[in-house]
Amino acid sequence: MKKELQHKIDFKTKPLGSLGMLEKLALQIGTIQNTLSPTLNNPHMIVFAGDHGIAHEGVSPFPQEVTFQMVMNFLQGGAAINSFCMQHDINIKVVDSGVNYDFEPNTPLINHKVGRETASFLTGKAMTPEQYEECIVKGRSVVKDAAKEGCNVIGFGEMGIANTSPATMILCQICNLTIEECTGRGSGLNSEGVQKKLKTLQAAKEFHGEIEDANELMRTYGGFEMAQMLGAFLEAKDQGMVILVDGFITTSVFMVAAEINPSIRENAIYAHQSDEGGHRKMLEHLGGEPVLKLGLRLGEGTGVAIAYPVIKSAVQFLSTMASFEDAGVSNHDEFLDK
Amino acid sequence: MKKELQHKIDFKTKPLGSLGMLEKLALQIGTIQNTLSPTLNNPHMIVFAGDHGIAHEGVSPFPQEVTFQMVMNFLQGGAAINSFCMQHDINIKVVDSGVNYDFEPNTPLINHKVGRETASFLTGKAMTPEQYEECIVKGRSVVKDAAKEGCNVIGFGEMGIANTSPATMILCQICNLTIEECTGRGSGLNSEGVQKKLKTLQAAKEFHGEIEDANELMRTYGGFEMAQMLGAFLEAKDQGMVILVDGFITTSVFMVAAEINPSIRENAIYAHQSDEGGHRKMLEHLGGEPVLKLGLRLGEGTGVAIAYPVIKSAVQFLSTMASFEDAGVSNHDEFLDK
Repeated sequence: MKKELQHKIDFKTKPLGSLGMLEKLALQIGTIQNTLSPTLNNPHMIVFAGDHGIAHEGVSPFPQEVTFQMVMNFLQGGAAINSFCMQHDINIKVVDSGVNYDFEPNTPLINHKVGRETASFLTGKAMTPEQYEECIVKGRSVVKDAAKEGCNVIGFGEMGIANTSPATMILCQICNLTIEECTGRGSGLNSEGVQKKLKTLQAAKEFHGEIEDANELMRTYGGFEMAQMLGAFLEAKDQGMVILVDGFITTSVFMVAAEINPSIRENAIYAHQSDEGGHRKMLEHLGGEPVLKLGLRLGEGTGVAIAYPVIKSAVQFLSTMASFEDAGVSNHDEFLDK
Repeated sequence: MKKELQHKIDFKTKPLGSLGMLEKLALQIGTIQNTLSPTLNNPHMIVFAGDHGIAHEGVSPFPQEVTFQMVMNFLQGGAAINSFCMQHDINIKVVDSGVNYDFEPNTPLINHKVGRETASFLTGKAMTPEQYEECIVKGRSVVKDAAKEGCNVIGFGEMGIANTSPATMILCQICNLTIEECTGRGSGLNSEGVQKKLKTLQAAKEFHGEIEDANELMRTYGGFEMAQMLGAFLEAKDQGMVILVDGFITTSVFMVAAEINPSIRENAIYAHQSDEGGHRKMLEHLGGEPVLKLGLRLGEGTGVAIAYPVIKSAVQFLSTMASFEDAGVSNHDEFLDK
């Protein structure tokens, strides 16, 4: 199928290779869907939200209640992710994976609450084995539901005050880097704040030591929203979806998914390279080429939503452009480097 | 207005500066339109087509008739630019600035034909002063018509076999570079082809010498499609439009426009950085930061059309996101680096 797809791409009315990365994306999406005529159907953005015990150690400039406040903002349509999903007709769903707040029963979110917050990984495992298992199952179920609605392209976002900290721990472990190499400003720490975060994460690293097993790594440091997203990534791969990978937090979860099921990389499109320094290191580790480099560092899945139309352009040209033959345009061979 | 715009951007529910380049674009577009609530209305893509005498010197791997064949492809909706304009509801108009073909009278293109092709700049000026003046006037008129239709954001594309050659000459002159530094593979020359192009352009450079005056520079080397695009750029600035700048050919024309009216840069958004090597040099000269870097080198205005939704996202978040106050989300100051 790859060869036929490449032929279809090469005989569109344009200089060979002149659509650059869009041609690679067209090839990849066609290969994932095993068709010369791929389509992106009912795109979904699932935003998982959860609170973190580590937030009480002062690793974020925002107080913990911002997690639930931002969930309310998602539900009212006022957040950045709403804005961009609205722009591109992306179906947005918000999951309470474990927010430290009692939402009213009729709140239009998916109630997958596993707890009010994880335990602080400074002094123990963030999740019990039972909580972790529950997260994987619940994360998978959200994607199964999306698949039933005909969704074949999906991205995940997250909201959880302090969650650059677990993402940093995961990066540090999987890529065998120091805490210093992996720690950034998060949502806007000043130098003093970064120092405090560094010290906290260093202490956690010393407490837990090396953790080789990917599931154990997520259980030790991850948030409920991250563990549910992990289940969701694994399910998206099982469903054969095109998987759009967002920024620092999301990519840390994707790295864990790729440890568990390496073939998931075949389905992944890296929407953007975040301004959070460690994200570049993650993409290098995964061998992923980002679609956008806009200096984003917002989270919520915003990089995916902003990049979506560019990714869709790959499918668009493949399905709507004429070939040289169709259009009666002269091709050239003699001067061509293949 | 800049200060108020920045305040509006900063108090959206997101970490300060976390939308990266989109925040710069929102500030720029608001400043151009002198409003806190900018909008992008009736976007237009004008594709200018024209033939070049220099094409007979074998500087392109495609034969000259591909210009008219591709114009027919535009009109039938089968080209890359059609595909992306359709995707984003961009109003596409095709201008016969001087194609070496007699189109049927009822062909749905704007007939601004100034000649069948320019003279070869290897042995003389590409255009007579009268032809050049006519091009500027006709280019301006297309943009005036778009403005009458309520368009306030515009991009230009081009089709003209061999037109990387005049673009190279313009880059070389304005940035004071050697022909070697400016010459690329165009639509797909092999090494032998590039050598022939280099030799031809070197000979032209020796024939014409230094050309300081920007209008004279365009008249010497430019195509009819390029000179009309120059008039169009100047008019778009006069109309206060947001101007989306495409790839190598288009940016060479924009450089000439910026020599004539330096303030046009305030209105310019650079849609992408092309894979054609000289384009990076052009952007550096203009101090322009590209929205996309996808390795495109197709022309036709495709970079603009692909980048359009990303640029629109800047206006989108500014108009639809809630502020911290609106959403009841706690902001943070104490840990904040401003």
